[in-house]
Amino acid sequence: MTKIDTAYEPLTVETLANRLISIDAISGILGTDRSKWVAKEVGDGNLNLVFIVNGEHGSVIVKQALPYVRLVGDSWPLPLKRAFFEHNALIRQAERDPGTVPEIFHFDETQAIIVMEFFTPHVILRHSLMAGTKHDGLADVLGKFCARTLFRGSDLSMKPADRKADVALFIDSVELCDITETLVFSDPYFDAERNHHTPQLDELVTSLRADIDLKVEAQHLKSKFCNNAETMLHGDFHTGSIMVTETETKVIDPEFALYGPMGFDIGMLLGNFWMAYFAQPGHASVEGERSEYQDWILQVVDEIWSVFSVEFSNLWRTERTGILYEKSLFEDQGHLSASEKALDQYLQNIWRDTLGFAGVEMIRRTLSLAHIAENDTIENEELRADCEARGLKLGRQLMVNRSRMASMAVVNELAKKIAEEAN
Amino acid sequence: MTKIDTAYEPLTVETLANRLISIDAISGILGTDRSKWVAKEVGDGNLNLVFIVNGEHGSVIVKQALPYVRLVGDSWPLPLKRAFFEHNALIRQAERDPGTVPEIFHFDETQAIIVMEFFTPHVILRHSLMAGTKHDGLADVLGKFCARTLFRGSDLSMKPADRKADVALFIDSVELCDITETLVFSDPYFDAERNHHTPQLDELVTSLRADIDLKVEAQHLKSKFCNNAETMLHGDFHTGSIMVTETETKVIDPEFALYGPMGFDIGMLLGNFWMAYFAQPGHASVEGERSEYQDWILQVVDEIWSVFSVEFSNLWRTERTGILYEKSLFEDQGHLSASEKALDQYLQNIWRDTLGFAGVEMIRRTLSLAHIAENDTIENEELRADCEARGLKLGRQLMVNRSRMASMAVVNELAKKIAEEAN
Repeated sequence: MTKIDTAYEPLTVETLANRLISIDAISGILGTDRSKWVAKEVGDGNLNLVFIVNGEHGSVIVKQALPYVRLVGDSWPLPLKRAFFEHNALIRQAERDPGTVPEIFHFDETQAIIVMEFFTPHVILRHSLMAGTKHDGLADVLGKFCARTLFRGSDLSMKPADRKADVALFIDSVELCDITETLVFSDPYFDAERNHHTPQLDELVTSLRADIDLKVEAQHLKSKFCNNAETMLHGDFHTGSIMVTETETKVIDPEFALYGPMGFDIGMLLGNFWMAYFAQPGHASVEGERSEYQDWILQVVDEIWSVFSVEFSNLWRTERTGILYEKSLFEDQGHLSASEKALDQYLQNIWRDTLGFAGVEMIRRTLSLAHIAENDTIENEELRADCEARGLKLGRQLMVNRSRMASMAVVNELAKKIAEEAN
Repeated sequence: MTKIDTAYEPLTVETLANRLISIDAISGILGTDRSKWVAKEVGDGNLNLVFIVNGEHGSVIVKQALPYVRLVGDSWPLPLKRAFFEHNALIRQAERDPGTVPEIFHFDETQAIIVMEFFTPHVILRHSLMAGTKHDGLADVLGKFCARTLFRGSDLSMKPADRKADVALFIDSVELCDITETLVFSDPYFDAERNHHTPQLDELVTSLRADIDLKVEAQHLKSKFCNNAETMLHGDFHTGSIMVTETETKVIDPEFALYGPMGFDIGMLLGNFWMAYFAQPGHASVEGERSEYQDWILQVVDEIWSVFSVEFSNLWRTERTGILYEKSLFEDQGHLSASEKALDQYLQNIWRDTLGFAGVEMIRRTLSLAHIAENDTIENEELRADCEARGLKLGRQLMVNRSRMASMAVVNELAKKIAEEAN
């Protein structure tokens, strides 16, 4: 529980052991001899302090929010309350898809600290995608995680009063929503202060910012993001929020959790895979070295969507206990085909939103404040711009033409053609 | 402010003066001589106590929630908190469209009492629609009321933090939402306990309840109602929530207020006009007597939509200060056509939703618990069923084919043909 007698103070590697030793839930894992605790600050994200703490008997992650955006500094304040939202999101995700998110050992709301399971020897998926490493079962975990958290966090499954209370709880996350609303959906489409892009993209960026179809679609999608509280989302579900070994996949960092549209998490995820796909030539030591790996990425994308669809359909048929598309109206009346028809149309809606949000992600990660390491680490600016331009082109297509794209095979074929053609 | 030292107790005509005399805001209007106060209970709605109180100097309406549904009795409990939601909705509506809703003189949260402006000699619009009375300026007020409250209660206009706090406030109205979710969107589509309908409709009702396209659309629309928190809605915007004189139009009773989709209020309103249109033959003393009045109703419907569109467009161009479709992305970049294109598409979305929700209203008001007086007062059951069947037919068309209906002229022409053809 919250310790209201202690004022907030950021942890350091020096003070950490002293401050956390008395918490049984932690010393129970690390060991009670604090002289054996070794803390290392490893936060490579944009917002928080993150420590790996090793003790005699085990290790934990200690994550603490800072009262500002770490990437920018104290000129950009950000409430500590995000630890509260992350804590609440982790609890719900653990219930809805057990075993995929870190177990929480301790939460201190005042100190904005979450002490949780340390996944080791896992690495951040984004780094794997740069290194060209494949992972078994990746799509299966990610597709199921999306299906389970999206379905079970919605009015398809929850009691209405519970979902409504939850919407009220998470909608208080005003400042983190503002980051997404601004940096993701608006800044990329005009010359906003915090934007930056690879100089060789100037001409393309100018044309995108004058592209009326694109700008209008971006706002239609923003409107859905802001207003369609269909389910609890992770809210920041990119390849930097996923940890992997050769065979295991875990999901972390849901501090941007909010109620939003079904297609947002999967869309952001797929957008990151497509960007990683286009970035591969920037990481090849000889030309063509990564082409098989690129095929693997598209295969993962294809599989994520198909696993998602199958699992979502499975939950639709077996766990539809909420107030939407009630069984009393369909199955209980013997109208099995009505339930399947509704499911098909429901999935088509998610599909269209998914493609749109994927496009939004690809554009903002190239033109707005936060970019992706796959592109940022390509030192040759010409080559980097070339990879980024292809992402922008697919992103635009997805946003503007998403209603006309029939299947993932069609989209992946489009990605391949964009990868092949002259920029 | 709330008097927490007094337990809730329903008012009676006998106790009212004693209990309210000490409140200056009321005695200031009625006069301080309580022996001159005369209270009359006039609640003809389904839920609450409503008193007209006349005093020496003026009159007020005293509305008090009961802890159950008045129409059904204490077997159906309903929280007193609905007075709190009505109070909050009235305040916001008065800000957003001044002069259309009753002024509030006093609010007591514990007693669930709102003391407000008494509109006289206004009558309930629904009664006028039965009597065949026309009203000048009706469409103008209703169209503008919808445009102003919907636009100004949304992310097109509000500060994000204010809108988010407001969503959290109104989403606590779980039980009133449940009434709409259940009675409006689900019960009509199967043989639910509280349903009733005119016996001559049996065959049509059976076919509607087996109509898979219709049932699936009803649930898609329910999904929008439950999840798309686009703006603050009145929530119960039918012709019984509107008071009129020959030249004045007022809006009352927003206790079902919630954040929901833009098309819901206007849809419910138009659905009620179309039902009143089909009910006219049931109120004619000679055949054809009401045909000119029917034309007037369709003209009102047409005008409501066009006034709404014009006013909404006007607000879009002059008051778009929210986080959606920001001017910084459009007008400030010289892209005026982008702003107009976005507006056109936005209005098209509202149009499609409006038709869908109109259809939902027409079906639920014939098959579910609460019907409309225009039909209920037709004593000849054959004739009543005939009027109701036409409403059901239009309602079904609107729900299933709303994406293919290009204009109000098309819809009104469809209504005319349904009115003319053999049932």
